[in-house]
Amino acid sequence: MKPRGEEEEEGAAGGGDPWKECAEVAVQLALRAGQIIRKALTEEKQVSTKTSAADLVTETDHFVENLIISVLKEKFPSHRFIAEESTAAGSKCVLTDSPTWIIDPVDGTCNFVHRFPTVAVSIGFAVNKELEFGVIYHCTEERLYTGRRGQGAFCNDKRLQVSKETDISKALILTEIGPKRDPATLKLFLGNIERLLKAQAHGVRVIGSSTLALCHLASGAADAYYQFGLHCWDLAAATVIIREAGGTVIDTSGGPLDLMSCRVIAAGTREMAMFIAQEIQTIHYRRDDEN
Amino acid sequence: MKPRGEEEEEGAAGGGDPWKECAEVAVQLALRAGQIIRKALTEEKQVSTKTSAADLVTETDHFVENLIISVLKEKFPSHRFIAEESTAAGSKCVLTDSPTWIIDPVDGTCNFVHRFPTVAVSIGFAVNKELEFGVIYHCTEERLYTGRRGQGAFCNDKRLQVSKETDISKALILTEIGPKRDPATLKLFLGNIERLLKAQAHGVRVIGSSTLALCHLASGAADAYYQFGLHCWDLAAATVIIREAGGTVIDTSGGPLDLMSCRVIAAGTREMAMFIAQEIQTIHYRRDDEN
Repeated sequence: MKPRGEEEEEGAAGGGDPWKECAEVAVQLALRAGQIIRKALTEEKQVSTKTSAADLVTETDHFVENLIISVLKEKFPSHRFIAEESTAAGSKCVLTDSPTWIIDPVDGTCNFVHRFPTVAVSIGFAVNKELEFGVIYHCTEERLYTGRRGQGAFCNDKRLQVSKETDISKALILTEIGPKRDPATLKLFLGNIERLLKAQAHGVRVIGSSTLALCHLASGAADAYYQFGLHCWDLAAATVIIREAGGTVIDTSGGPLDLMSCRVIAAGTREMAMFIAQEIQTIHYRRDDEN
Repeated sequence: MKPRGEEEEEGAAGGGDPWKECAEVAVQLALRAGQIIRKALTEEKQVSTKTSAADLVTETDHFVENLIISVLKEKFPSHRFIAEESTAAGSKCVLTDSPTWIIDPVDGTCNFVHRFPTVAVSIGFAVNKELEFGVIYHCTEERLYTGRRGQGAFCNDKRLQVSKETDISKALILTEIGPKRDPATLKLFLGNIERLLKAQAHGVRVIGSSTLALCHLASGAADAYYQFGLHCWDLAAATVIIREAGGTVIDTSGGPLDLMSCRVIAAGTREMAMFIAQEIQTIHYRRDDEN
């Protein structure tokens, strides 16, 4: 075995399973964060807005992100972090070869504000720009989704398997609105739903949490997901989980996924993903690494 | 006390609480149906279509409806029934003054077919055309919603209270697509979402179960719900639950609810309901009692 640099060694004990400790810490942190979020759901909230009137943030988002990052920094001081609220506060959003944690402390903040019980913590981890594992915790339903590269994906220890559907007329499709709400964006957003319903999709669902929608896709409860305007912290953990459940995660152009491009198609089958890619029209969002 | 006719006596023991036994039987049946649906969610399904390619029915819908009605008929032989699959099979959908059970055995059949975990049993009960109680059971999350006229609404024994929001720009709105998917209907459906998002609603959610969306409204997790193309069996139980949680349930015109009109607005406040009524455009569906 080649000697490793210091950056690669932290959390990388265990030879054939180099990121085992990191993955275990991620699960513990997601459960702890989930407990905080569940409690906060019952309390009054101070709500602020970010990029638009529909892009919300609360004290809980900040508190949970700080908690997760502070624990991880202590355990793995050389690791890097990309996280929703740090980025909103001005941190650069750049994925290097270093071990990097990609964190959404509260996915579904609008749901959280309304106590709509579809809220998750998402923790992804990449090394050499490759996603190694993902942990997503559905805080109110207490469902823990995990995926590790080469080791499968699970929900509360039950193995996940995507849908094998290739026919749009038998498909359930998931999407999310995204933060931009100008008239042109709304036209494109609704036009894409119209195209898929005209193609006779069984239905379209909008649940208000990208990560949990992607978990439904991983579990085979939906056949495709697409979105413009989500971020790398919505995608990182879910991408590992979906791929390990046998699914496809690609760019909306039909090409390979670009984690920083703020757009995605995920599907149980490549045929379904490519069908969606051909049907939908692009909504432009600034890349995460341009901020 | 005036002597009662035979029809009113069945299940109407207890003087001041005349429909107690009926409400208790409804809860037991909803739980039993939920158990069957949970098991069926893990199994292969035979799916058929009804009014459109998106209007699905399974063996489980029929099995659960038959089970519920057979138990109720034995206990309350003079009572009448309005139920989704019996109506699809040609039974008249007419509400008389007789005690009448209004039943959706599997609400969210499309979700059920896809194993998307948002599926409910809904049992409502009306006497003299007035809704007396409603029971809705979220089968996978095991949440039991109940409401009795004058006695409050509950989720697993926790009292429900609607949102007090009156401002659309702070509102989370729920809706459902409905079974008609012709281009004109889709334009109206998507146009209504566009109007509410342009009015700066925080978001719109589409979860694939009218009854569970209405339960979210009752619990204060959303501020309004509207739909065209739902049926009296989607509305009956939920209407009692929402009203007992302090909410408003009206016709999409802004007038009083007509249970057979296949359209509804429900909201935490009357102001919010009236705002939605003014914003949205009507989608025409045939009345339930015209079938």
